[in-house]
Amino acid sequence: MIRKLIEEITKKNAPVVVGLDPMLSYVPKQVQEAAFGEFGETLEGAAEAIWQFNKGIVDAVSDLVPAVKPQIAMYEQFGIPGLAAFQKTAAYCKEKGLIVIGDVKRGDIGSTSAAYAVGHLGKVTVGSKSYSVFDEDFATVNPYLGSDGVKPFLEVCKEEDKGIFVLIKTSNPSSGEFQDQKVDGVPLYELVGRKVAEWGEECMDGDYSNVGCVIGATYPEMGKILRKQLPKTYVLVPGYGAQGGTAKDLAVYFNDDGLGAIINSSRGIIAAYKKEEYAKFGEENYAEASRQAVIDMIEDINRAR
Amino acid sequence: MIRKLIEEITKKNAPVVVGLDPMLSYVPKQVQEAAFGEFGETLEGAAEAIWQFNKGIVDAVSDLVPAVKPQIAMYEQFGIPGLAAFQKTAAYCKEKGLIVIGDVKRGDIGSTSAAYAVGHLGKVTVGSKSYSVFDEDFATVNPYLGSDGVKPFLEVCKEEDKGIFVLIKTSNPSSGEFQDQKVDGVPLYELVGRKVAEWGEECMDGDYSNVGCVIGATYPEMGKILRKQLPKTYVLVPGYGAQGGTAKDLAVYFNDDGLGAIINSSRGIIAAYKKEEYAKFGEENYAEASRQAVIDMIEDINRAR
Repeated sequence: MIRKLIEEITKKNAPVVVGLDPMLSYVPKQVQEAAFGEFGETLEGAAEAIWQFNKGIVDAVSDLVPAVKPQIAMYEQFGIPGLAAFQKTAAYCKEKGLIVIGDVKRGDIGSTSAAYAVGHLGKVTVGSKSYSVFDEDFATVNPYLGSDGVKPFLEVCKEEDKGIFVLIKTSNPSSGEFQDQKVDGVPLYELVGRKVAEWGEECMDGDYSNVGCVIGATYPEMGKILRKQLPKTYVLVPGYGAQGGTAKDLAVYFNDDGLGAIINSSRGIIAAYKKEEYAKFGEENYAEASRQAVIDMIEDINRAR
Repeated sequence: MIRKLIEEITKKNAPVVVGLDPMLSYVPKQVQEAAFGEFGETLEGAAEAIWQFNKGIVDAVSDLVPAVKPQIAMYEQFGIPGLAAFQKTAAYCKEKGLIVIGDVKRGDIGSTSAAYAVGHLGKVTVGSKSYSVFDEDFATVNPYLGSDGVKPFLEVCKEEDKGIFVLIKTSNPSSGEFQDQKVDGVPLYELVGRKVAEWGEECMDGDYSNVGCVIGATYPEMGKILRKQLPKTYVLVPGYGAQGGTAKDLAVYFNDDGLGAIINSSRGIIAAYKKEEYAKFGEENYAEASRQAVIDMIEDINRAR
């Protein structure tokens, strides 16, 4: 699956992923009103609003970017209807030729991690039948529980040609509380990185592994070190734009082949119409504002890599 | 909420929680056949089977135990119908007077963690309305992202009188890969424990905090140390029974007041009818086998504490 992602990145010349993290406050008034008109101010109404909002953006950007990253929390908060909107969004994106990175940050042990792995990436068995459920192409995974939590995902990655991105160093201000703690002089995130490389060796798919990692754009000095230590690991980089990471920071996340990283922007793209820079599009043309923000982001990133 | 949990533990004299982690392979043939008869071998069929299975067990044990801990992965793997069964199970358990600990191990940052917190413990806002969604009483939380990931849960705990159990030292064999790494001579799980105590101070509810922790029954020597370091932190202890933790190991998890810990068993209870010890009940009487296993477990634990 990483090979497919690289092909799409190369074809579109865009190492960029659009984060579909729809807060209701991002959804333009007219979209909210239409959804609430049909379903009321209910969970179903909220789910319809975020689905229509997503659809508008996906239609506007699907020719520009290789991938999207829906953040499941933003859907899960609206319960069953919200999760149905997550699934519908993922399926729609795949129909439009986009690779779907489920930002689910799951991680548990043994049969429980296996259940997450089959539910998000693989196929679940019911009697004599089996079903793809959420059917993302990649999922993000939390490593705190160690190999027991990650290995069931590796099995599914191998069987189904899917991939994962394991959290190493997250983009948030407090990520250092545990991740930066030094063990014999080596920060924990580097130890996690070493394990990611080890897990990744089992899952090579061309020059890179189907086991990637997450390193925040807000920590480029750490990104630089990890990039060298993990030459075959694709890096999913959140934190560009709204969280403070700049394109200049991002050069270090790429290998010399210009590959090795894919940069995520969520709010900066999907709520672009709220920014002064794109306000001229107006709320009704939010999707065109997102399209312009994607064009600008790709240009910005490509200057840096 | 921890005060309420303690009241129920005291009333029932049972520091025990039943883990509702239904694998389809645990569901007796007659329950599967009835569900598949109605819905076919579909996700809906699987969801119906685990819901009916759960209902049988809950009806058989709800007078004996204070709480249940549904593991969301086991439902999520069956997609939307599975998650609906999770929600239905949680609601039914609450109707029966049980406290529901959602074993969701969520953890993200900022607004994303806030979305998980409102979705699982609080209320989500849609226009002028607000809704309780999964409405668990407690949720388990993964701390790898640091305070940014946990604080949104604390806000909801304070507003709604709910609680969380933060993973410190998990019960699985590889939990030491990261959790045991020593930082200036102190294992990472102890550093996480210190943060848990700090977060917990904001959320006191009687003698204990609404911010509890998870420490596996399989690591009693670590449990003993952490118990002393975290006198006001309730410990959710997985790993009893099937994972190898014994009642003797468990004494160290309790404070001198006989409180401070609640022991989980999942497979050992819900699949009791498959064990030689309870085989006499037969597959059709799986719920009675579970009831007997709960009675035996409570006796075993109470001898130890």
